[in-house]
Amino acid sequence: MNPKHDANTQTALDMADARESTSVDVRAVCVFLHHGNENWVRRRNIVDILSQDRVFDKAKREYLSRTERYNRIQAITNRIYELAEQHQWDRADLNTAVASIDEQLPIGLHNIAFEPVFNLQASPELTSKYGRLIETRGIIGCYLQTELGHGTNVQALETTATYIPDTREFEIHSPTLTSSKWWIGALGKMATHGVVQARLILPGGKDAGPHLFFVQLRSLEDHRVVPNITIGDIGPKAMGGAAPLDNGFARFNRVRIPKENMLSKFAKVTDEGKYIKPPHAKLSYGGMLYIRSSMVTSAGWQTAKAATVSIRYATVRRQGNPDASGLERQIITYPSVYYRLIPILSHAYVLIQLGRSLTKAFDTMAERLSSGDASLLAELHATTSGLKILCTTMSVNDIEVARRSMGGHGYSAYAGLGRVYADYVASVTYEGDNFVLDQQVVRSALKSHQKLQSDARSSSSEAVIASLSPSSAYLHVLLSNSRPTTLPSSWRDPEASVSLLEWRAALLVNEHAGNVAEITNSGGDVESSIDAIVNQRIAKGVTEAFVARRVLEIMRDVVPQQISCNGTQEVLGKLYLLHLLTTVESALTDILSFNLLPPPPLSSSSFPQDPSRSLRLEINTLCKELLPHAIGLTDSFGFTDWELDSALGVYDGKVYQALWERVQTEPLNQKEVPDAYEQSIKPILERGQRLAGVRGDAKL
Amino acid sequence: MNPKHDANTQTALDMADARESTSVDVRAVCVFLHHGNENWVRRRNIVDILSQDRVFDKAKREYLSRTERYNRIQAITNRIYELAEQHQWDRADLNTAVASIDEQLPIGLHNIAFEPVFNLQASPELTSKYGRLIETRGIIGCYLQTELGHGTNVQALETTATYIPDTREFEIHSPTLTSSKWWIGALGKMATHGVVQARLILPGGKDAGPHLFFVQLRSLEDHRVVPNITIGDIGPKAMGGAAPLDNGFARFNRVRIPKENMLSKFAKVTDEGKYIKPPHAKLSYGGMLYIRSSMVTSAGWQTAKAATVSIRYATVRRQGNPDASGLERQIITYPSVYYRLIPILSHAYVLIQLGRSLTKAFDTMAERLSSGDASLLAELHATTSGLKILCTTMSVNDIEVARRSMGGHGYSAYAGLGRVYADYVASVTYEGDNFVLDQQVVRSALKSHQKLQSDARSSSSEAVIASLSPSSAYLHVLLSNSRPTTLPSSWRDPEASVSLLEWRAALLVNEHAGNVAEITNSGGDVESSIDAIVNQRIAKGVTEAFVARRVLEIMRDVVPQQISCNGTQEVLGKLYLLHLLTTVESALTDILSFNLLPPPPLSSSSFPQDPSRSLRLEINTLCKELLPHAIGLTDSFGFTDWELDSALGVYDGKVYQALWERVQTEPLNQKEVPDAYEQSIKPILERGQRLAGVRGDAKL
Repeated sequence: MNPKHDANTQTALDMADARESTSVDVRAVCVFLHHGNENWVRRRNIVDILSQDRVFDKAKREYLSRTERYNRIQAITNRIYELAEQHQWDRADLNTAVASIDEQLPIGLHNIAFEPVFNLQASPELTSKYGRLIETRGIIGCYLQTELGHGTNVQALETTATYIPDTREFEIHSPTLTSSKWWIGALGKMATHGVVQARLILPGGKDAGPHLFFVQLRSLEDHRVVPNITIGDIGPKAMGGAAPLDNGFARFNRVRIPKENMLSKFAKVTDEGKYIKPPHAKLSYGGMLYIRSSMVTSAGWQTAKAATVSIRYATVRRQGNPDASGLERQIITYPSVYYRLIPILSHAYVLIQLGRSLTKAFDTMAERLSSGDASLLAELHATTSGLKILCTTMSVNDIEVARRSMGGHGYSAYAGLGRVYADYVASVTYEGDNFVLDQQVVRSALKSHQKLQSDARSSSSEAVIASLSPSSAYLHVLLSNSRPTTLPSSWRDPEASVSLLEWRAALLVNEHAGNVAEITNSGGDVESSIDAIVNQRIAKGVTEAFVARRVLEIMRDVVPQQISCNGTQEVLGKLYLLHLLTTVESALTDILSFNLLPPPPLSSSSFPQDPSRSLRLEINTLCKELLPHAIGLTDSFGFTDWELDSALGVYDGKVYQALWERVQTEPLNQKEVPDAYEQSIKPILERGQRLAGVRGDAKL
Repeated sequence: MNPKHDANTQTALDMADARESTSVDVRAVCVFLHHGNENWVRRRNIVDILSQDRVFDKAKREYLSRTERYNRIQAITNRIYELAEQHQWDRADLNTAVASIDEQLPIGLHNIAFEPVFNLQASPELTSKYGRLIETRGIIGCYLQTELGHGTNVQALETTATYIPDTREFEIHSPTLTSSKWWIGALGKMATHGVVQARLILPGGKDAGPHLFFVQLRSLEDHRVVPNITIGDIGPKAMGGAAPLDNGFARFNRVRIPKENMLSKFAKVTDEGKYIKPPHAKLSYGGMLYIRSSMVTSAGWQTAKAATVSIRYATVRRQGNPDASGLERQIITYPSVYYRLIPILSHAYVLIQLGRSLTKAFDTMAERLSSGDASLLAELHATTSGLKILCTTMSVNDIEVARRSMGGHGYSAYAGLGRVYADYVASVTYEGDNFVLDQQVVRSALKSHQKLQSDARSSSSEAVIASLSPSSAYLHVLLSNSRPTTLPSSWRDPEASVSLLEWRAALLVNEHAGNVAEITNSGGDVESSIDAIVNQRIAKGVTEAFVARRVLEIMRDVVPQQISCNGTQEVLGKLYLLHLLTTVESALTDILSFNLLPPPPLSSSSFPQDPSRSLRLEINTLCKELLPHAIGLTDSFGFTDWELDSALGVYDGKVYQALWERVQTEPLNQKEVPDAYEQSIKPILERGQRLAGVRGDAKL
């Protein structure tokens, strides 16, 4: 150890060096990630305004109670709309402002759940009455679907809306404790109105299943709860997650609402109580698809945050053996560290682009849907289900891997990633539990497989392949004559990975379809004759093949179009390739099971050789080639210190100084002797001294 | 839906039915898990005493600030010692009481780190002065090793202890910010004394590396910090974890301590300042091995908690398609649920037994060590490193899998598992970061492999195999002539799994040894010529082979000895077998890479068949056979509702009632209109109404 070496000052030098070492044009990549210079500049301006406003200060939030966090988040919300008026922000600006707050705002549920559902399904009459107020947040809404006893199985929701022809009213009722609406964001303390999922009961008792009803929840005079409704907050979340969000419960005791309050753009009830079916059974899925599409983008940015914080810390943290400079090594140079972090960086880049194309696809679909054309719905549904599972599972996992890669200090709240995990982990459950959604992906894959087989009987392979939609394109390999029977000549060719992932998906689906047919034909029960994780494997395989094809498009088309600098193009190419290779690596069990990677020729050793070795070596090489660009590629996300709020992820690299300063604000440190001393610690010590036969004032 | 069906009352019926359905003798298994009836009864009595004492009430703790949590935990600590005196608890009873508190007590660090290190390494003189006081907690200690800038690399710690012959003192000093001791449990607010790791600087400036020094930190008069030391709490932890633990920091400004305060049982300094080496370099490892050994047991009980809560909830939660009774299915009957939960149950059973045998091994080693015999140290070190990694990684993962398996309600703090995760996740980092420890396991494996090769040149295979220690026993396959080249005739034979796992470990090590030799011989750098996760794969492989052999012993020897009922024996046999089979499943990439599972004969299909299919089907069958016993096997852990503190894991199954009751205590629900209304929500609404051109008192 160099005695003059000061680790606390070295950090800034290390960060500056790392910033020097990249050939990436950080500004160009930043613009690429933010989809254009104008977006980026607007975003930067908004973040500057917020971060300089003391309402948005984060210094003490770790120490606040949930009620204080709630007061704070509502003050933030109010201030955002105040600033929006002041700066004349448009809707996109407002969304940017809300998205830049690293906490869930109760108003968010109004924006992403209540308003879209209302707009998609309310009748013109209801819209003319409330549409503008909803838009300006003159009323604030929530979307009441999940119940204490039912989440996944919407068909079994217990809340009822009974039509009463005499008064032309619906009576909303919670018949049981378990029918209490539960987990509803913004319901607990904020929302004045809500859209309630309830079983429509027609005169005579006929149950028409769940429909949507617009219900006032709180008075606009004094915010008190409307009579005959019981409303409250459902309490703290696991790991302190989503603390400032007032997820709530509601019980309805025969609450009457006018008939017009049914969201009746599609399904309707006549004055007499006759039910009129919607023109298309799945028209109401629009809102859900919107949320799922946007989840891909947010998964990308959450992952980006985790990558930025962890890669910055791993760049300035030194530990272990000396490097060429004689100092301990930067921990990012250890294989066990960079092998965890560089792939996370690649995931962020993939998810952000994927989210972009998905949002576009949703907009196209929604436009057609509004003119009654539902032709794009099924494909988008298939795509978003699989992507919702894959992206949330991957992102949640990455955040925690990144946090743990930071060792001991990663477990400090000041590191910031624990908070990101706690807030974000629920995404694997909400909007369709990932383990339940898997079945939908498999169902859709089996349908495509069946269609492929029947089409292949009547049409040429080329015609069948040309007719495949993007979500089932991987099935093309089943009709081709080629098979990957040798190790790829070069893992640098992204086609090799895409092909392996497509073969793997297709063979998984093909084998499953065969098994299902065999079991069904012999009168067996599929579920009990098949292995228990087949749905997870297939959903993962199918979605990874879809993503791999998209990544190839990004590498071949998007990057060259949008990035002019060759050096930057090359680095991005490697980053996207790394995503493909690590996906293949994580799929090795399937790939080897189907014998898609044959073992290399026997060497002098008498034992079999590992055929995955060349892949793993290539991943290692690629990671090392990307290492000098890691800081540049994370800087390109464009996060400010205010956005990250992480002592370990500070831009200037001075992590120890930042930790030291944060620690001084801990409430326990405001007193030298804690309150617990007189009450408890002193009695413990005195008891011990008595038992040891020592007087307290002895020469200890 | 049966209109008379009430999900809230059904839960208790479902739980009672599940309790009826097992053939397991719950009491016998409980005694087995608690290592004897006497242990179990004593434990039960202690838990009864604590849970009926209002100091230990948990009803409101989710709502407390960290300072309040700290005051509460110290009151709990004081009460435990008060009760101990009152009930005349011995040390084992006290440990039981402390272990039954589901929070980390600051005093815990005194018990498991400070006291053992002191006892192992203090000189007789220091022991005679402080030993009894430490035992009775007349002084309270902490163990100061980690620094702000250094954790893993103990050799690079910066704190110095300079010997001053004139006064026969050491001067303890923190030369830099990064040399501040950091993360030290109980240091922040409680400890009066500490054992400090500091570089021993001899007269003339010679640096003898890190040694241990006993230092007073706070006055025993008034608990104020000793002059020239700066002490504080390091702030909140990620996800609210370990909230009541005062992990602290300390900076020393040339603090003098008498020479006797060096822990000098092994290494010493003479009065003149001459250094006397310890007789064995690794004698000081004892304390670390003790902590790592005990971590296996605690991983087992943490996993047991997660299994109990999640299996109980999955038993009473109904969702989806109707079952034979016409009600929605219990979610535990879905493959995607039981496939996640039953293996977790098996892990808990394995870890608890494994921990037991490890504790015994430690006691034997410690006994020999105290008489200067260090022969068992290396083997225990090899074993505990690998097990520490495997058990903490597995348990942490299982807790989160269990929580997520509970869907939406699993994300409620009232579910209880989020808290367990947040508290326990740090175990993958402390006592040796798992990703760093991997290297030690690999190093030890390579050494054993080398010894095997050289021994095999001079001795018979039988003799070499007989000489292998348990931690390297798996290497025996390399000397045998047989190889697994066919699918096991039956996965029910546990030997098949053990053999596959031993082959996999041995081939991983063998290939790695070959690669390392090749690279070294050609003058290359091993780290940069090898793939980045090879250490992780090998450490996992080697440890899983070790554990598999132990599981086989438990199945063949321990269970038949300790469980008399045949039906119970059979169920436990299946549970342990499930552990083996799921371990093989998780190792499939390696197993397939080495061609250890050949593909089945080609069927009519033209595509290759998955050779792992029979394994996966067997796992599914085994899970289903274990399902009727799942509640019995979790009841056998013997947790009370007070211990679990989970609304979803209540013994009587009434989860909805429990959630409803907990929610009423949420502080936000104590006011109908939240404080945030006047300050923020009302302005938002009024602004919106103004923008929409609607007056607040209009007919909304």
